[in-house]
Amino acid sequence: MAAIRDALARADLDALLVTSLPNVRYVTGFSGSNALLTITAKDCVLLTDFRYATQVDEEVGGAATVRIESTNLWAGLWTQLSIMAGVERIGFETVHLTHHDFSRLLEQGARWSWRPTTDVVETLRAVKDAGELGHIERAIVMAESALHQTVPLLRPGLTETAVAGILEHHLRDAGSETFPFPSIVASGPRSALPHARAGDRVLNAGDFVLLDFGAVAAGYCSDITRTFVLGRASDEQREVYDIVREANRLASGAIRVGMTGMAADAVARGYIADRGFGEAFGHSLGHGIGLEVHEAPRLARVVETPLASGTVVTIEPGIYRAGWGGVRIEDNVFLSAAGPRVLTGFSRDLHELS
Amino acid sequence: MAAIRDALARADLDALLVTSLPNVRYVTGFSGSNALLTITAKDCVLLTDFRYATQVDEEVGGAATVRIESTNLWAGLWTQLSIMAGVERIGFETVHLTHHDFSRLLEQGARWSWRPTTDVVETLRAVKDAGELGHIERAIVMAESALHQTVPLLRPGLTETAVAGILEHHLRDAGSETFPFPSIVASGPRSALPHARAGDRVLNAGDFVLLDFGAVAAGYCSDITRTFVLGRASDEQREVYDIVREANRLASGAIRVGMTGMAADAVARGYIADRGFGEAFGHSLGHGIGLEVHEAPRLARVVETPLASGTVVTIEPGIYRAGWGGVRIEDNVFLSAAGPRVLTGFSRDLHELS
Repeated sequence: MAAIRDALARADLDALLVTSLPNVRYVTGFSGSNALLTITAKDCVLLTDFRYATQVDEEVGGAATVRIESTNLWAGLWTQLSIMAGVERIGFETVHLTHHDFSRLLEQGARWSWRPTTDVVETLRAVKDAGELGHIERAIVMAESALHQTVPLLRPGLTETAVAGILEHHLRDAGSETFPFPSIVASGPRSALPHARAGDRVLNAGDFVLLDFGAVAAGYCSDITRTFVLGRASDEQREVYDIVREANRLASGAIRVGMTGMAADAVARGYIADRGFGEAFGHSLGHGIGLEVHEAPRLARVVETPLASGTVVTIEPGIYRAGWGGVRIEDNVFLSAAGPRVLTGFSRDLHELS
Repeated sequence: MAAIRDALARADLDALLVTSLPNVRYVTGFSGSNALLTITAKDCVLLTDFRYATQVDEEVGGAATVRIESTNLWAGLWTQLSIMAGVERIGFETVHLTHHDFSRLLEQGARWSWRPTTDVVETLRAVKDAGELGHIERAIVMAESALHQTVPLLRPGLTETAVAGILEHHLRDAGSETFPFPSIVASGPRSALPHARAGDRVLNAGDFVLLDFGAVAAGYCSDITRTFVLGRASDEQREVYDIVREANRLASGAIRVGMTGMAADAVARGYIADRGFGEAFGHSLGHGIGLEVHEAPRLARVVETPLASGTVVTIEPGIYRAGWGGVRIEDNVFLSAAGPRVLTGFSRDLHELS
């Protein structure tokens, strides 16, 4: 909270209107789906509706003053702002406010002066404290436990959707509160689709089977990808797998506090390009994880921001060849002054499943 | 497509920029997570990125001209618009465009004139054709199949999260492509939280157990809620259950094409209020379902729009008493000139699970 107030003071703002739900959760602990949060130098007021009356008290404690609105949160906001003395210039989150709601600010909220802000809360969220890191580590353990129990059950004849069912059942049994994103189970040629979900394709002998999924603990996400071969790997499968594994190893070993996202990305990308597959790694190296499965920082070709100490990022190089298949190996890595620490323990060796 | 072009002509617009992903999917069939769609009187151009190069061709067919952008979709949009003759006034979706992206329109897109639009595609989506209704019906069958297999397994000692795991495993085995929203498994006093998810609470004898979940078929959602008693129901539990069941029955029987959302809501709300629980039904009666689990139309106190023929809505009255528990019974109903047709077949009788 002090850090947000410092940011407000630096930006010459009297208040910040937070409309991003993960940002609301980060500041107050509230996990509901309808909220407006106003932070000033003195106050922190959370507006939500009837459905969350019980939950909000349990979750927020003393982190904010809670008001339950019976009609519309925006009507409550105007009332709330009217009684806050000295509030004139108010920041809003430009990437988290729709044009429709922005129009409300200009119309019903015309007596205040509205200024776009970017990443005020996100920048703080990128740096995890020990408690947050602990939640992420628990979510990683859940995901790895589910994967260990699922891998021995993979066999030709199962649909991708059925595999997702097995995996997700084990995720729930491990305690995962929800799924951070729709599980990806992509087999055979579909493993070449970086954002395939699970479909009705039946697993065949010789297929790559790519699993990309995560778990959630206390709101914090994990995100892991492993790619298996159903049976004996062909020479070509082994070659591609080994390149991706080495790219993963090199990037996880080289990433450092102070390095740019671009430089981290270049470690894996350069190696894959040197091995002749540069065109086949068509996405970024990785992204931060936390209350959202994609958050700051980004490890991508265009990112010039230096990495902060305390971030947790994914390292997920891949090679995709349309019609043939693809391999991705994704770990979660904690960055501090002591260097990178790979949090994901699951083996990165090539598993040939019999 | 003809209906969208008619709407453009009526609004004196040369083009519509579609940024809502469900709207993009409705118009083109594309289900990826990054897209900009431009519709003019002559053209329909879909921009997406490398990751979807294979998928987009399979999904879109002839419904749109596809362009894969290597850098940024917005850069591609300016290029695309520049070569479209006669395009000056362009509508954008005010509730689906962030202030950040709106600023792009005013800056990089300054040579065009931008006009906010509301619900152009959503209004079309509200009315389902036979194919869409068939997908929803398949998603309902999946959800009911999973529920039939889960109910006999409910017993004291299971956590809510473990129940979610069982339910979701059966949803996957029934073929559900993903989960339309995080499954709600709320037991005992937690059943009074209308938007509880599954937590680590252990089911006890005598608890209400409320399950609210859905399935997805060809992108289309189902949404069902049933509330059970773990053991023998108390008189108070039975009284509350019977009131909710009757409110559900009355609303499902009375809803008609041409009725307002407000009037439909009032059928259930009036009955619950007459029985003395008016304050305890703190949410709306229902909402449309389709490519999104919440879409037009809304059945709520403030909605004066008449219901169209061809809509599929939820009917989901509830009674919630903090600290004690709650009951919700939710069905999916298809509305046509022939009257309402309840698509959900699962029994609404009180199930006492032994």
